[in-house]
Amino acid sequence: MRASVYHGPRDIRVEDVPDAAIRQPTDAVVRVTHACICGSDLWPYRGELEIYGPGPSRTGHEFMGVVEEVGPEVATLRPGQRVIAPFAFSDGTCDYCRAGLQTSCRTGGYWGGAANDGGQGEAVRAPLADGTLVKLPEDVDLSDTRLATALATLTDVLGTGHHGALASGIGAGGTAVVVGDGAVGLCAVLAARRLRAERVIVLGHHASRLEIARGFGATDVVEERGDAAVERVRELTDGGSSHVIECVGTAGSFATAIASARPGGIVGHVGVPAEPVNLLDVHMRNVQLIGGVAPVRSYIPELMDDVLAGRLDPSPVMDLVVPLEEVPAGYAAMDERRSIKALVRTAAA
Amino acid sequence: MRASVYHGPRDIRVEDVPDAAIRQPTDAVVRVTHACICGSDLWPYRGELEIYGPGPSRTGHEFMGVVEEVGPEVATLRPGQRVIAPFAFSDGTCDYCRAGLQTSCRTGGYWGGAANDGGQGEAVRAPLADGTLVKLPEDVDLSDTRLATALATLTDVLGTGHHGALASGIGAGGTAVVVGDGAVGLCAVLAARRLRAERVIVLGHHASRLEIARGFGATDVVEERGDAAVERVRELTDGGSSHVIECVGTAGSFATAIASARPGGIVGHVGVPAEPVNLLDVHMRNVQLIGGVAPVRSYIPELMDDVLAGRLDPSPVMDLVVPLEEVPAGYAAMDERRSIKALVRTAAA
Repeated sequence: MRASVYHGPRDIRVEDVPDAAIRQPTDAVVRVTHACICGSDLWPYRGELEIYGPGPSRTGHEFMGVVEEVGPEVATLRPGQRVIAPFAFSDGTCDYCRAGLQTSCRTGGYWGGAANDGGQGEAVRAPLADGTLVKLPEDVDLSDTRLATALATLTDVLGTGHHGALASGIGAGGTAVVVGDGAVGLCAVLAARRLRAERVIVLGHHASRLEIARGFGATDVVEERGDAAVERVRELTDGGSSHVIECVGTAGSFATAIASARPGGIVGHVGVPAEPVNLLDVHMRNVQLIGGVAPVRSYIPELMDDVLAGRLDPSPVMDLVVPLEEVPAGYAAMDERRSIKALVRTAAA
Repeated sequence: MRASVYHGPRDIRVEDVPDAAIRQPTDAVVRVTHACICGSDLWPYRGELEIYGPGPSRTGHEFMGVVEEVGPEVATLRPGQRVIAPFAFSDGTCDYCRAGLQTSCRTGGYWGGAANDGGQGEAVRAPLADGTLVKLPEDVDLSDTRLATALATLTDVLGTGHHGALASGIGAGGTAVVVGDGAVGLCAVLAARRLRAERVIVLGHHASRLEIARGFGATDVVEERGDAAVERVRELTDGGSSHVIECVGTAGSFATAIASARPGGIVGHVGVPAEPVNLLDVHMRNVQLIGGVAPVRSYIPELMDDVLAGRLDPSPVMDLVVPLEEVPAGYAAMDERRSIKALVRTAAA
């Protein structure tokens, strides 16, 4: 089968790899219809964070598709069913899974790398299929590109934005500050409004993305950078907000997020912290840092309900569609900021 | 009057300074009887963290004493009363003070530096005296050195250990891991037990301090360093504790504290984070970082009750007593780890 493989910074190739196949009785094989390229895929692409081993590594952790085959111990799935995969697989039964922290599943793991199939390919062996995969309703119409795109965000970015919003403690009537206008930042705006934030202030530097943020319900936009951005947020919030959502992950964006919080406030962070973070401001003002990798498996059911019912439309965060063979071009477009986020639509879609 | 002055790394001198005097109507002048040298005083002493301005700076933020004079707007204090000062002054009336976060008081500040008197001196001008100073009972007998020492810990280390314990979420029946066997770490052990932790695991490298930790109720002692310490904690806690208290502040001790937490667990941190901290492990396991500079003003009343009633005895954390003129020797003893923490007893004691 064909799949995307990472060979080194800026060297992604779509090539022939062994067919996805059942290896464990709890596996399923999923024929991929839609995959996505994630902002965090750009860290290794840019050579900024080594998350793959030294050898060739399969890429992509966001996909949905059709169950093709199931192992003998898979109880809840059968061939032909459409499924969404969260970006980590998990057994659904251990203490962490039961607590809703499936990313820390005692037997789970992540797609791609040297050991597992990646989402950016024709098919995927899905371990722990019963715990991992979420079924779509039988009658869902994925020829509707907008709906397919919206559902594809459930694999990662929408759940990640939601995790940041939840972590920040935002609720009815509150003010959320969102640091970052990438796909996750935009989803955090949507999630904060869904959690009934009265006011959402988004920090970013790209007019087209900030326009989407406004469409998602952002009430204020801050385009300044660094200290000037913090000053503006503090003006807008009487000294800082109790709820900040960090969606970038650099030392600078963490500093901005922390400084945007009021003393005792919370920074809900979901950006991968690629650099060490200075915590002196956190210390002096008792700012809380809560968050991390999102257990999106936990959030897919409720968010999917809202997407299917038309109450939530995150589809504008994906502004480029590429076929599988053009995955490398999708990375390049995102790297060069010509695209916020790319959807990969395979021949099976 | 005489007071200790910082002139640069390892250059602390006790010298003549202008007498403490009322400047604002809300000031009091306090004749210092007891002061302490804090572990965080060692950061500038060692030249590791610049917290003072370039010029000479008054030192010390932990003291208690006798009210000598009050400004015309001071309502609750009169000359002759014995008082304890928390390590920050605060008005007691702003929104942050009312929320119990007096370290973020809108009009407050810290002792010492170029602008304020420090605790390591004969007397202190105490701004916002009504909000800041806590009265001791009239009949307290401070000729009892053990009691005076125990009460002196209320100015900082006991409240700081308590803040870390509270931040970590430790409660009845839980297991707390305390990283650090300095005065704050030892107080965190005491505080965790006071909050009814069933088990307290302390990490440190000094036999005499760990002996005090055991006396304070630590149930397990881990003397390994780095990865070996984490491995031991994980063995003792089935993969990590939900409640970790970080009491050191280096990048390494934060890493140990974070790795000692179980996924989704809390690191209550009170060590001054003098170095940037790698948050990748925080991110991957959703470890929460909650804490910072302790609003000890908030905690003094309840902790003082327990100390006065004999239910809580933190006095063993101070193992050296020096007169004011020997403050520099106290710094040197702590720097060289010959002393955990030094009490300064002035001629007025």
